[in-house]
Amino acid sequence: MSEFQQVTVAKKANIYFEGKVTSRKLTFADGTVKTLGIMLPGDYQFGTDAPELMEIQVGELDVLLPGSDQWLHVSGGESFSVPGNASFSLKVQTVTDYCCSYLK
Amino acid sequence: MSEFQQVTVAKKANIYFEGKVTSRKLTFADGTVKTLGIMLPGDYQFGTDAPELMEIQVGELDVLLPGSDQWLHVSGGESFSVPGNASFSLKVQTVTDYCCSYLK
Repeated sequence: MSEFQQVTVAKKANIYFEGKVTSRKLTFADGTVKTLGIMLPGDYQFGTDAPELMEIQVGELDVLLPGSDQWLHVSGGESFSVPGNASFSLKVQTVTDYCCSYLK
Repeated sequence: MSEFQQVTVAKKANIYFEGKVTSRKLTFADGTVKTLGIMLPGDYQFGTDAPELMEIQVGELDVLLPGSDQWLHVSGGESFSVPGNASFSLKVQTVTDYCCSYLK
């Protein structure tokens, strides 16, 4: 799927880490939400409210998932999931284009 | 207008200047196209095909429009237009969130 249809897009971006991480919020007809985002190389920690599915479209990064002590490498075309009410860490090695789905 | 409704959004980002400039393509029901983008501080030169209206939502930058020898300062909440088949230069001072409309 190369595009999302009939979505509502917030005009303003979400900007984090001095612009090294940015995203755009998409709301679908069924009320579900995704963000499309860019991460530049760097180390980041994020928190979740809802569980998230992170699809890495382009990029190379390592992720430390909650409760794990082992970094996992993730490349463009791969995904990982994060439970709700948790935090996770990323070491982003190359410019990363992602799609984050917020699950219920 | 804080959001765009019933649009088609390309899932993959456009990535320029090693990720310091990125954008997302939105296609509207009437076929018109806008991009929502982020520019990190830096100096950039861009070319246009169609004429463009650049709305700066957040940020501080200077623009050198085609045929001009004078840099203009543009702040969040301001806009500028660029003719088609032209090039323009930007000196972006702070993280900039923009909406670019491609005119006919």
